Amino acid sequence: MNANFANTLETLETPCLVVDAERMERNITRLRTRLDALGVSLRPHLKTAKSVEAARKVMTTQQGPATVSTLKEAEQFAAAGVRDMIYAVGIAPDKLARVAEMRARGIDLMVVADNVEQAESIAAASKVAGSRIPALIEIDCDGHRSGVPPQDHARLLQIGQVLAAGAELRGVLTHAGDSYRGGGPEAQERFAEAERKAVVDAAQVLRGAGLPCPVVSVGSTPTAHHAKDLTGVTEVRAGVFVFFDLVMAGIGICRVDDIALSVLATVIGHQREKGWIITDSGWMSLSRDRGTSKQPVDMGFGLVCDVNGNVFNNVIVADVSQEHGIIAVRPGSNGRLPELAVGDRVRILPNHACATAAQHGAYHVVRGASLDVEAVWPRFGGW
Amino acid sequence: MNANFANTLETLETPCLVVDAERMERNITRLRTRLDALGVSLRPHLKTAKSVEAARKVMTTQQGPATVSTLKEAEQFAAAGVRDMIYAVGIAPDKLARVAEMRARGIDLMVVADNVEQAESIAAASKVAGSRIPALIEIDCDGHRSGVPPQDHARLLQIGQVLAAGAELRGVLTHAGDSYRGGGPEAQERFAEAERKAVVDAAQVLRGAGLPCPVVSVGSTPTAHHAKDLTGVTEVRAGVFVFFDLVMAGIGICRVDDIALSVLATVIGHQREKGWIITDSGWMSLSRDRGTSKQPVDMGFGLVCDVNGNVFNNVIVADVSQEHGIIAVRPGSNGRLPELAVGDRVRILPNHACATAAQHGAYHVVRGASLDVEAVWPRFGGW
Repeated sequence: MNANFANTLETLETPCLVVDAERMERNITRLRTRLDALGVSLRPHLKTAKSVEAARKVMTTQQGPATVSTLKEAEQFAAAGVRDMIYAVGIAPDKLARVAEMRARGIDLMVVADNVEQAESIAAASKVAGSRIPALIEIDCDGHRSGVPPQDHARLLQIGQVLAAGAELRGVLTHAGDSYRGGGPEAQERFAEAERKAVVDAAQVLRGAGLPCPVVSVGSTPTAHHAKDLTGVTEVRAGVFVFFDLVMAGIGICRVDDIALSVLATVIGHQREKGWIITDSGWMSLSRDRGTSKQPVDMGFGLVCDVNGNVFNNVIVADVSQEHGIIAVRPGSNGRLPELAVGDRVRILPNHACATAAQHGAYHVVRGASLDVEAVWPRFGGW
Repeated sequence: MNANFANTLETLETPCLVVDAERMERNITRLRTRLDALGVSLRPHLKTAKSVEAARKVMTTQQGPATVSTLKEAEQFAAAGVRDMIYAVGIAPDKLARVAEMRARGIDLMVVADNVEQAESIAAASKVAGSRIPALIEIDCDGHRSGVPPQDHARLLQIGQVLAAGAELRGVLTHAGDSYRGGGPEAQERFAEAERKAVVDAAQVLRGAGLPCPVVSVGSTPTAHHAKDLTGVTEVRAGVFVFFDLVMAGIGICRVDDIALSVLATVIGHQREKGWIITDSGWMSLSRDRGTSKQPVDMGFGLVCDVNGNVFNNVIVADVSQEHGIIAVRPGSNGRLPELAVGDRVRILPNHACATAAQHGAYHVVRGASLDVEAVWPRFGGW
């Protein structure tokens, strides 16, 4: 519904979402090359792009494997031919009928559990479906969210036993969410090793009790780019690496000019005495994500580039309302406000690609310095 | 696309958006009664709900008047019969062809300008269209964003003259955006009076120069609820009053139990030693808006209620990731974590209704304490 079929960045209706295919392909190649060298497979997280066309570029085969964050994603990607997916959010019992229905259509959709109640509901749903639903046990490698604490072997084994008896115990999974806080390459290597160790140890506990554990799954974009050794791990999940963003640049996982996603905006006015340029891109198009606010360099609501994608150093979207953005020099920096007239266009690099992309209905695909739109990729939302 | 046709809050797929029609109708009646007493008309801002069904409840007639924040809204509401709209974001010259096209279909769509370049582009587009496009001049009543500074009579008159000569000068408009920061009833009365004075004075300057100024438009939800006198004002725009939210409750414009909007979520796990309950409602369903973070009571990403809408005092969504929410007791409060099992449902009151609603494709309408869904109202996004 949000697609723009005009064909250059000078003619598209603004605000709209732009992806530089050249940068995106470079980002994908970088991670694939890295994981190939480590001998593990990539199970990309499709929650970042939520686009069939982007998924086809990032998956290693057109059937998967893939990771999703909603059953809507699972259904949309299944309709596009993807057959092997993990729904990587702890399953709500009420969602299991929908999972069973997809599995009955031949989709190998796996679910995730970190408690016995969930495992029992998966077993019960398997019984109703007449088919064992495969589940991974989530391990909490860094205390940031959900998952079985690594030391809680009793809970791990209890979940494993319930799943093995009444459903299918497919393996273990973890996500080093704390790695997004940064800390430099050595910290990232430690996060990656903690992530690896948490699931490899859990797999050993399960196997030691005679339980199966074929899949040992880790993943986050920062750790995927810093792991030195993934012995015992079978696959890596990562999502935001496909586009990257200012949060990832801020913690050194990419450079600013690796960021493939931007929001195209038009200048609608000035408050010259305040050093403000007003655009038609507010939080509705940028998202309210302030992920760089805790980083050493706070990028406001995004970093401003010209329409060709050249960064205006230290010029940011300093404030937003729903459909207005205020461009200003980053406080405390030596940036200079560019000369931009009403009607001129800019591109804004996002703090958080997943959040910014979610505000839009389509990607307008360009390549490198070209302003021509070579494709429009629809994206979907919802659950 | 996101509609859920199951019929109670116990059976809907989660996360999803819920509106309590009883509270919504009460909120609408409250503002209408107030503005009737002040003798001004309501031009509701439809950017909050972006729903034809909600618009029909909030507008005083099915043809308008109304305010919109995007041309997409203008087109969608025009298709539903709305004939009188202000597109209340400073116009980008490239959008004028689309405006002229809507006007040619009989929609009285007005645009907004705060600089001469915009006024000249409106005059040029009027010439191309063979029909004068009506525009309002935006006045900056509180320095928070765009608009002509009230003291800059030269700029005001120059814009007015360009519009009157080549387009149609329809009037003046302002928005007291700073009123969202709060300050108590007396501060709000002052914001309301400053908002009134800024446009009434501007209208006088224009009329004194022999220019027309039929429309004198003010509006923000806080000032609309506190203005004591609106002499000289012809209409009030307000948006979030229809649903209200925690930001509005935090500055005393409504009570928490006036908030008509919530997100329905399901418990998927616990980290009991940390005092956390994990749900399937993360920032994708709540938005990343942290509007209460600057208020005396920081509500995190939302205030938690049971499925019937009864508030768990001081129990908030303390943190989120894309599809996970962490419920915890508000730091420093005397709240107590409720006993909730995996599969139980909660409702989460949002910080910012406009931002949270924007994450969803439909409203599930309930009434008061009932769990039955009496209607599903689609909502749209995009530009």
